[in-house]
Amino acid sequence: MKNIIISKSRRVRSTPFSSRIEDQGVKSYTVYNHMLLPTSFSSPSAEYNHLKTHVQIWDVSVQREIEIFGEDSSKLVQLMTCRDLSKSKIGACYYAPLVDVDGKIINDPLIYKLSENRWRLCIADSDVLLFAKGISSVKDFKVEIFEANVDTLAIQGPKSLNIMIKIFGEKIKDLKFFRFDFFNFDNEKYLISKSGFSKQGGYEIHVENAESGLKLYDYFFKIGNEFNLKPGAPNHPERIEGGLLSYGNDMDIGDNPFECGFDKYINLDSDVFFLGKENLKKIKAKGIKRKLMGVKINTKSIDLINEISIFDDKKNEIGKLRSAAFSPRFNMMVGIAMMNINFCKPSQKFEIFLGGKPFNGEVCEMPFL
Amino acid sequence: MKNIIISKSRRVRSTPFSSRIEDQGVKSYTVYNHMLLPTSFSSPSAEYNHLKTHVQIWDVSVQREIEIFGEDSSKLVQLMTCRDLSKSKIGACYYAPLVDVDGKIINDPLIYKLSENRWRLCIADSDVLLFAKGISSVKDFKVEIFEANVDTLAIQGPKSLNIMIKIFGEKIKDLKFFRFDFFNFDNEKYLISKSGFSKQGGYEIHVENAESGLKLYDYFFKIGNEFNLKPGAPNHPERIEGGLLSYGNDMDIGDNPFECGFDKYINLDSDVFFLGKENLKKIKAKGIKRKLMGVKINTKSIDLINEISIFDDKKNEIGKLRSAAFSPRFNMMVGIAMMNINFCKPSQKFEIFLGGKPFNGEVCEMPFL
Repeated sequence: MKNIIISKSRRVRSTPFSSRIEDQGVKSYTVYNHMLLPTSFSSPSAEYNHLKTHVQIWDVSVQREIEIFGEDSSKLVQLMTCRDLSKSKIGACYYAPLVDVDGKIINDPLIYKLSENRWRLCIADSDVLLFAKGISSVKDFKVEIFEANVDTLAIQGPKSLNIMIKIFGEKIKDLKFFRFDFFNFDNEKYLISKSGFSKQGGYEIHVENAESGLKLYDYFFKIGNEFNLKPGAPNHPERIEGGLLSYGNDMDIGDNPFECGFDKYINLDSDVFFLGKENLKKIKAKGIKRKLMGVKINTKSIDLINEISIFDDKKNEIGKLRSAAFSPRFNMMVGIAMMNINFCKPSQKFEIFLGGKPFNGEVCEMPFL
Repeated sequence: MKNIIISKSRRVRSTPFSSRIEDQGVKSYTVYNHMLLPTSFSSPSAEYNHLKTHVQIWDVSVQREIEIFGEDSSKLVQLMTCRDLSKSKIGACYYAPLVDVDGKIINDPLIYKLSENRWRLCIADSDVLLFAKGISSVKDFKVEIFEANVDTLAIQGPKSLNIMIKIFGEKIKDLKFFRFDFFNFDNEKYLISKSGFSKQGGYEIHVENAESGLKLYDYFFKIGNEFNLKPGAPNHPERIEGGLLSYGNDMDIGDNPFECGFDKYINLDSDVFFLGKENLKKIKAKGIKRKLMGVKINTKSIDLINEISIFDDKKNEIGKLRSAAFSPRFNMMVGIAMMNINFCKPSQKFEIFLGGKPFNGEVCEMPFL
């Protein structure tokens, strides 16, 4: 692919940390929720190896937080997701696919329950704010809905616990996976969750005061040498191997949550109501015709900007590749594909044409074993 | 600003024309509606002068078209906009700010009325699809709402009429401003509107068949020499001088349509209902405290990635600069600023600090005289 420069403007928002990461040599950006997301500092493979061995700090401010606050906030949040939140707890995070009335996925946020009437939806790349506002304005719900002024730093990698202890103290050890609590640094309080878009362990620090956040960012690098801390970004081969789906890449509004393997987050049996419930019941009754699967492909580079067809040995299309990245671990490409349901079994062989040439691949489970 | 490369993926969608414009040497991209928008091929000033003298073809596929179809489609479209569409005509385009229940702007599409129950909203950079789906699912409207598979080529510049005649025939002469009709080329039918994001005159060709669209694109360049046709992109100095607002840059969900000078598109007196009506009445009764104005600034370059404060001679903040570009015509920067209402008069002087240094500027009308 050609190297083309990104144009900046107010519309494509910078983050409080953009100037820092540019000084640190960020090489590429993407745009996510109308905001800049750094994507590389060196090479994906070097960053993959570093992430699996040490610790990285990521500017993931693009995970915008939609706050839903007020008397009817729980009703509104529940209407949007197929996950049953009726027994949800304050202090916990819930990975929750949002679905429209047709039962199609419109986002897959991590939902933070701050109190009985205050929720934050840490969103993937689509304007959940507008969906919530559309519903709420007709329902005449008593809620406030807004994008919170929060920018997130992710601390990811096996050394994340130790560096976090050094900064926030031993109390961080008590934080369990997908739980959040409040921690202090330099007289500023931070909401920190044990979460993040990698499988290497880590935390997400939710920064409400940009000035303090910059001091915190600099402090991480001041003490980071002993942990071999580096700036980083969500790493595609790592997240693909870990089976972490990317909205807009692996799935979109054309897909339903069964096709994405979200069965355990789909609540159809309780009396909890959400917008897509009736249609998801119909989809379940009919059965799905395709599903997201991991794939390995015998090559070392794929320029993927659109779905790429996957064929069986009789040249029938049996799936579509949606994400791909070179895996240092497997020394070949790993990817995520929407496969026809009859071809979802692990070790299923297939063929894919790249630049006109055929390559072999096979289906596998996610996360990759 | 540092030159940083854009990362491509399926999530940041390419257009059918991306490979063509990359072969033609596109230098930079932005992302708009989750899709690539070319932003430059040479320099903004060279493209400004060319656009005002000759004709350009722009890949503006990012102006995604949200189709709203069915029995209740007119009701749904009207609920979203403060513009009165009760007398709207098939074959016409309506510039129509969309507002939420608070009366804040969520998008400013050009709305195409295809038939009494089929509309297309050619949108700016926000997910109007989700807003429409949110409203519709609660209202239980009989509508289908989807992003149409349409990619748009804009033909802009003073020679646009002549090149369009050469390709689509003399019938194009009858097309009036903000009207659309259907035209044939090479056995394919195209919806063409007399519209576009410049003040130099032009057309927008709505391509439904990507393969045919590529043939059409190539044909433009086959016959384009005599018109000095070049690939181009929306040009910031030209659109700022023309007073064409950019959602996300000049205005966003924090602003109401009165503040953006959209008074003539705000219908509060008829009995037509839309979601933000009651709150816009209140806003009107109280009067606005700030308004978008043109500005000229005595310098030749501004790195604008965020609002920049504007001060009076006593160092009180009196406004915020939101867009800026070097104008070859005025030989200085032109911009759009949200100015405190007491400082909106043309020729109002102000000061702005860029890189720590003060520069002089003055307020002016839009479009720039």
